[in-house]
Amino acid sequence: MAAAPVWSVDPRTGKPREQVADEATAEEVDRAVRRAYAVRSALADRTVRAAFLRAAADLLDATSEHAIEAADAETALGPVRLTGELARTSAQLRAFAEVVDEGAFLDIRIDHADPKRTPPWPDMRRWKVSLGVVAVYAASNFPFAFSVPGGDTASALAAGCPVVVKAHPDHPATSEICASVLRRAAAQVGLPEDVLILVHGFEAGVELVKHPLISAAGFTGSVRGGRALFDAAAARPAPIPFHGELGSLNPVVITEAAAAERSEQIGAGLAGSMTLGEGQFCTKPGFVLAPVGDAGDRLLTALTTAVSETEPGVMLDHRMRDAFVGGVEERAALPGVDAPITPGAGGEHTVSAGFLTLPAELLTSAGEHDLLLEECFGPVTVVARYTSSEEITSVLSRLPGNLTATLHLADSEADGSKPGAAELLAELTPLAGRVLVNGWPTGVAVAPAQQHGGPYPATTSTSTSVGATAIERWLRPVSYQSTPAALLPPELRDENALGLPRRVDDRREG
Amino acid sequence: MAAAPVWSVDPRTGKPREQVADEATAEEVDRAVRRAYAVRSALADRTVRAAFLRAAADLLDATSEHAIEAADAETALGPVRLTGELARTSAQLRAFAEVVDEGAFLDIRIDHADPKRTPPWPDMRRWKVSLGVVAVYAASNFPFAFSVPGGDTASALAAGCPVVVKAHPDHPATSEICASVLRRAAAQVGLPEDVLILVHGFEAGVELVKHPLISAAGFTGSVRGGRALFDAAAARPAPIPFHGELGSLNPVVITEAAAAERSEQIGAGLAGSMTLGEGQFCTKPGFVLAPVGDAGDRLLTALTTAVSETEPGVMLDHRMRDAFVGGVEERAALPGVDAPITPGAGGEHTVSAGFLTLPAELLTSAGEHDLLLEECFGPVTVVARYTSSEEITSVLSRLPGNLTATLHLADSEADGSKPGAAELLAELTPLAGRVLVNGWPTGVAVAPAQQHGGPYPATTSTSTSVGATAIERWLRPVSYQSTPAALLPPELRDENALGLPRRVDDRREG
Repeated sequence: MAAAPVWSVDPRTGKPREQVADEATAEEVDRAVRRAYAVRSALADRTVRAAFLRAAADLLDATSEHAIEAADAETALGPVRLTGELARTSAQLRAFAEVVDEGAFLDIRIDHADPKRTPPWPDMRRWKVSLGVVAVYAASNFPFAFSVPGGDTASALAAGCPVVVKAHPDHPATSEICASVLRRAAAQVGLPEDVLILVHGFEAGVELVKHPLISAAGFTGSVRGGRALFDAAAARPAPIPFHGELGSLNPVVITEAAAAERSEQIGAGLAGSMTLGEGQFCTKPGFVLAPVGDAGDRLLTALTTAVSETEPGVMLDHRMRDAFVGGVEERAALPGVDAPITPGAGGEHTVSAGFLTLPAELLTSAGEHDLLLEECFGPVTVVARYTSSEEITSVLSRLPGNLTATLHLADSEADGSKPGAAELLAELTPLAGRVLVNGWPTGVAVAPAQQHGGPYPATTSTSTSVGATAIERWLRPVSYQSTPAALLPPELRDENALGLPRRVDDRREG
Repeated sequence: MAAAPVWSVDPRTGKPREQVADEATAEEVDRAVRRAYAVRSALADRTVRAAFLRAAADLLDATSEHAIEAADAETALGPVRLTGELARTSAQLRAFAEVVDEGAFLDIRIDHADPKRTPPWPDMRRWKVSLGVVAVYAASNFPFAFSVPGGDTASALAAGCPVVVKAHPDHPATSEICASVLRRAAAQVGLPEDVLILVHGFEAGVELVKHPLISAAGFTGSVRGGRALFDAAAARPAPIPFHGELGSLNPVVITEAAAAERSEQIGAGLAGSMTLGEGQFCTKPGFVLAPVGDAGDRLLTALTTAVSETEPGVMLDHRMRDAFVGGVEERAALPGVDAPITPGAGGEHTVSAGFLTLPAELLTSAGEHDLLLEECFGPVTVVARYTSSEEITSVLSRLPGNLTATLHLADSEADGSKPGAAELLAELTPLAGRVLVNGWPTGVAVAPAQQHGGPYPATTSTSTSVGATAIERWLRPVSYQSTPAALLPPELRDENALGLPRRVDDRREG
């Protein structure tokens, strides 16, 4: 059987640009994993790992012109956005180098022997070690930041795990450029290039998660694709952790007082956030609870004005475009649903933004309107108009898990003097990994306190894929009991020559 | 349909003692979970949680005579062992109260807004919140420490999660006593009793893991039972974390020099560890690599002497006894396997300890001898005699994951001056969560640096079920972005009035 070709396609025209590679066969996936596994001990040295991440960042920056040109041609995301995304991606690689240097992620705990305990404690020294080879499934919508050189790869390499990346078919040429950058960076610091290997193809992705030498997986994509891979990971003879980001509605609640205070600002802000990048953000605000009445009406007017000023845009590929057009049509056809601005097909290759409205009451019990509580990828949001706080509570209790949940409050509600705001915050917290007040969820800071992950289907685990703690996904703890100092790694010896942060006999050190 | 009765059975006679309860129907499981869910916010206050855990410890101690009498009658583990186990269990409840007080498990990270970043950082504050109602599946072999009041329950309550425990059928009366202790302790500190609910029955356990309001599960038991529940947890519409401890061989490697130096001490130590509690420890050393030749022979002689001095004993139930007798027979019948002391049926209700030997070479490739690499619950171990370090490496590479891995070294090898010892330690580390030198794996200190969990099938996750970090299983992170201070919990406000350990702008505080 001939190998299936992998084409780079221009979403602005739907035309193939170039053949980039072939899809990997099962044998090729097996070879890739074995090659990555064979070099796993090369990543044991944390100093080399940090140098590698910094070299990768520098090389990515140095290759930015070429990489951004390819990414724009394949994704239509535009050079401005892609320039920012690439800078964010190299900054993220450097941030993980700092995490590696600092060493807090090793979570070192030392309990010296205590013969006075009943039963006596032996000497115990615990830290975290790399899980092994990690499979990364790249996302479509961030060809750098959630793709080959993105957060999953950076955090896995930081943890000392070799990575086999399954490229997203929407940007195979960009993926090849980035994989080449990472492999050259490895060689620059004296590491084997096979600490990062790229494979293409849907079937290759399925083979990858089943491979016995794969120890964990990271995924960003759709509920359907992600769930299939999650199920395969769980069904293995030896199941592995599967950290998947699958889908999120990102609800927004706007209080009556907030709408009264800032209807135009909120309406315009919502338009900006939901249309950003053609609504192709996993944190797009896809569902809004806004009050009925004058203030809410003014907010929708502002939203209408701002959305009507947006130009039709190109989505990442034509399959997504068709899914968006179909998804919007199906939703708009539901009884009680209005479309003040009809989203849908813009031109032959484009889509136009819009939004739907309905009475929140239609969502307080199960029925056909539940479709509106599923993510629709693209520039559309659903505004449900509520008449009471009971209606808000009732609708929120029916939402699936989310990456984010947003609350818009008036100034007079932000001081905690009235119970309503605190209650709403308490209702939103179980729904999401990140709760925002008076902001918009698009835009995810690569900060230590970031949590980009939430209850299923937002994430298939309790982890984050952005921020310093993303490294925790690729580690497991090991304790050494009564082990002679000479045989321990320096990190676990009494003298702490490396000055690492540790807990020793339950006191913090370093 | 009449409810199925739950009987307490005396394993020393095989006779029923008393009917303790009825198995829970699906409706009763549903009611139990809903009751626990309804009181979840009662556990939000950490001061009350800590007081609850201490009250439970005190009440368990105060009830010890009654509880130990029931446990001995149901498990035949004997009052001495059970007295120690109960003390360990109440100490564990108090240790988790200290974890709650200290608050490091909240993993608080605060990043103040930084407008100079590109893109600017908003104010972000992250901590960990309770997952929700936890299902705990109690183990047979520790009627206190890994059962109703054990580590899974204690750590889940410490995390703020109500618990529904599925009792182990081998000690239902003890389970009822302990559940009553925990519920009374809750009432003592003003908490609703339903923060802990006990259910009985195999089907009830299956219903429990499928219930939509169950957020996570902890399990200690067999590979078969644990895998079935793991699969059910993964197959849910919204999958949940399943922290299961399923089975472990606990390999031991004895170097030639160690055998030469301490053959009698190691032989006797092995006998003591493998027969402890009738070999019914999840950390029983079930597989030993010992050298061929004189030193190894002397070691086996010492093992033979020590094992032959043990009396027949009673296992936890007759089903386990039959499985042990059958499992040993099947293993002993394999070609090349000898039984210097034949383990098996001791009397009508008892078993006698023994061990099997074979050339390690028979285990270097897949075949019928792989049965010897599966755990056999009860007082038996398998000693594989190796002829070279290559044979050790080859056999170790074929082992499944383990809770523990043990290395016995001579004094001359412990100083790191020869490469062999360090290499062996490096080969054992990927196999287990706890690596010991010159000790025995039975006995698990409830210490912060403990790791009781290892690669599958030892554990279905990367977590530990013993020690301070066991609390991490029942939490998920939430970040608050740009949230007014008045609406934040006190733990996340700038002033740190509670003096909690935190990372603020990436510096440690408190």
